[in-house]
Amino acid sequence: MSEFSLIEKYFSDIGQKRQDVLLSVGDDAAIVDVENLKQLAISVDTLIAGVHFPENTSAYDIGWKSLAVNLSDMAAMGAQPCWVTLAIALPKPEQRWLEQFSQGFSELAKKNNVQLIGGDTTRGTLSVTVQIIGHVESEQILKRSNAKVGDRIFVTGNLGDAGLALQSYLKNISLSESDHENVYARLNRPEPRVAFALAQKHLINAAIDISDGLYADLAHILKASSVGADIQFDQIPLSETYQKYLVDHKPYDLALAGGDDYELCVTVPECHVEEFRANAKLTDCKCTEIGSIVEGDKLSFWDKFGNNYTLQSQAYDHFPKDKR
Amino acid sequence: MSEFSLIEKYFSDIGQKRQDVLLSVGDDAAIVDVENLKQLAISVDTLIAGVHFPENTSAYDIGWKSLAVNLSDMAAMGAQPCWVTLAIALPKPEQRWLEQFSQGFSELAKKNNVQLIGGDTTRGTLSVTVQIIGHVESEQILKRSNAKVGDRIFVTGNLGDAGLALQSYLKNISLSESDHENVYARLNRPEPRVAFALAQKHLINAAIDISDGLYADLAHILKASSVGADIQFDQIPLSETYQKYLVDHKPYDLALAGGDDYELCVTVPECHVEEFRANAKLTDCKCTEIGSIVEGDKLSFWDKFGNNYTLQSQAYDHFPKDKR
Repeated sequence: MSEFSLIEKYFSDIGQKRQDVLLSVGDDAAIVDVENLKQLAISVDTLIAGVHFPENTSAYDIGWKSLAVNLSDMAAMGAQPCWVTLAIALPKPEQRWLEQFSQGFSELAKKNNVQLIGGDTTRGTLSVTVQIIGHVESEQILKRSNAKVGDRIFVTGNLGDAGLALQSYLKNISLSESDHENVYARLNRPEPRVAFALAQKHLINAAIDISDGLYADLAHILKASSVGADIQFDQIPLSETYQKYLVDHKPYDLALAGGDDYELCVTVPECHVEEFRANAKLTDCKCTEIGSIVEGDKLSFWDKFGNNYTLQSQAYDHFPKDKR
Repeated sequence: MSEFSLIEKYFSDIGQKRQDVLLSVGDDAAIVDVENLKQLAISVDTLIAGVHFPENTSAYDIGWKSLAVNLSDMAAMGAQPCWVTLAIALPKPEQRWLEQFSQGFSELAKKNNVQLIGGDTTRGTLSVTVQIIGHVESEQILKRSNAKVGDRIFVTGNLGDAGLALQSYLKNISLSESDHENVYARLNRPEPRVAFALAQKHLINAAIDISDGLYADLAHILKASSVGADIQFDQIPLSETYQKYLVDHKPYDLALAGGDDYELCVTVPECHVEEFRANAKLTDCKCTEIGSIVEGDKLSFWDKFGNNYTLQSQAYDHFPKDKR
C-alpha cells in the first residue's frame, strides 16, 4: 500500500459522523453547516515530540493527547466541540503507528461527538497540530477576564500527577509500577472537562484550563481580570500517589507548577456556589474550592496557620529539550 | 524584549479587524459570530522549509505564501475567506524575521478581509500551518465531483512560472535577472483567485486550485466526477518568460506538472460559457479555455494536429529534500 493510501485509510474516517458535516476530507476544503449556530470558539495547539510529550510516548497516546489539549481549550471557554482538522508531520508513515494514532484520536473524538473534517500530512520531525471549532453562545462564554472580587476559586480533579509522571520520566523520582501507570495515564491521556464545563458554565464567571500549572494559569485570569487571589495551598487536591511520593519534598510545587494536568480552574460568584457544588456531584467530577478572588494583583498561597508559601520554581521545564 | 513578548507583538494584530470577531488572540480560544451565516468551508495546509519553499525564501514571502495557499483553497470552493489561525514552529524567534513574516501575512490578509484570530508558537524546524475558515452557501459550493460531460475547461492566469522558478533555484536553468525576479514572484507570492471565484462561482460546475500541477489536479476532478478530459496543450497559457526559456525543452512539462501555480482550474457548462468569459474580462483575470470534459476516465493531451502528447514526468519533485 502506498504512503498516500495508508494515510488516506487511517485519517479519512476519524471520530463521530456528524449530521452537520456536508463535505469531509477529500476536497479543497470541508463544508459544515452553521445555520442554527450563534458563535464559534476556535483554537489551535501544536504538540511536538520531545517538547510536549516524551519521545517514547505511544502513538495511541499521542493521538489522544493531541485532541485532548484542544478539547480542554473548548471546555475552558464553555464551548461544545464540533469539528477538528489535523496537520501532522511524520518522519515515516508506518501502518502500525498510523493505526494506533488514529485509534487514540478517534476514541476521544467519539466520546466528545467530534468529527475530523480535514488534514494535511507532511514529512518531518513528529509534530501534531490540531485546530478545533466548537459552538458557544456569547452570553455564556467563559472568559479569563471576567473574575470578580469575592468569587470562590475551584479546580477540577487532582493536580500534579502529570508533573509527577514527568519527574519519573526524567528519573528524578522512582515510582512503583502501578503508581507509574496511574500517573502516566494522567500525563498521556488527560480527560478534558468538556461535560463539566457545559453543565456548569452558567454558574461560572471566569475559567482557564491548567496546562502550564495552576500558578501560571491562574495568573492569566488575574491579569486579564485585574484582580488578585488568595489560595489555601493545603486545599489543593492531590492524588494518593502524589501524597505518597512527595511528602518529603516541597509538597505543592509540582501541583502548582508541574503543568499538563488539563483540569479546569474556575471562579464562581458566591451566589452560585451552592448550586455549583450540587451540579459537580451530579456530573461525577471532583471539584475542590481552593481560595478566593481578592482585590489587588497578587497571587498568594497560604497554609492553614496563615503562613505564606513560596514556590521553588514558578514553572517547571517540561522536558530537557524544551526551551520555550 | 522576551521571546514571548516578541511573538505577542507581531502575531496579535495580523490582518483586517473584522466586526464578527468577538474575541481574538489571548484567551483559550477565539470567538467569532456566525449568526447570519449558513455554511463554512474549512481547510488546513502546512508549509515546511526546504519542502514547500526553498530554505532561502524571505520571511515576508513565507508569511505571504503560507496564507496564499490556504486562500487558494477557499477560492477553489467558492468560499469567502474570513478567519485564520497560525501554528508556527521556529528555530529561534528573531525580531526582524517575525516582523517581515507578519508583514507578508498581514498584507495578503488585509487584501482579502481576513483576520488572524489565534495561534500557537513552538520551537522547532521552520514550519507554518495555517487553518482557514470561510463562508459559503451550500448551493454554490465548487466541488471537485461536479464536472459534467460537455463542460469547457478553463484555467486562470499562466501556468508553469512557479515551476520555472524552481528549476532556476535548482540550477537546472539559467534566467536573466529580471526574468528570475518575475518567476520568483509567482513562486513566492502567488495571488489566490478569491475575487475571481466569488464573481464566477454561479457559472462553474467544478473547481480545484492548481498546487501540484494541472495534470495531477485536473485528474482529481476527473476521478471525483467519473469523467475524462481532452486538453489542447497548445492552448495552455504560458508567460513570455516561460516561452522564451522553454522553447527548446519539452515545452509543456513544467506547465502541466510543475506545481505551485495556485491558479484555478474550473469546468463551465456550455450554457454559461459566454457569461463566464464576459465576467472574466470584468474581473481583470486572464482566463483561458484549454479543453473539455468527455466521457470515460482518461486525461488526454493533444496538439493542434491531433497528435497525443506524453508527459516526461507527471509530477516534479518540488525540492531535493521533498520525499512526499
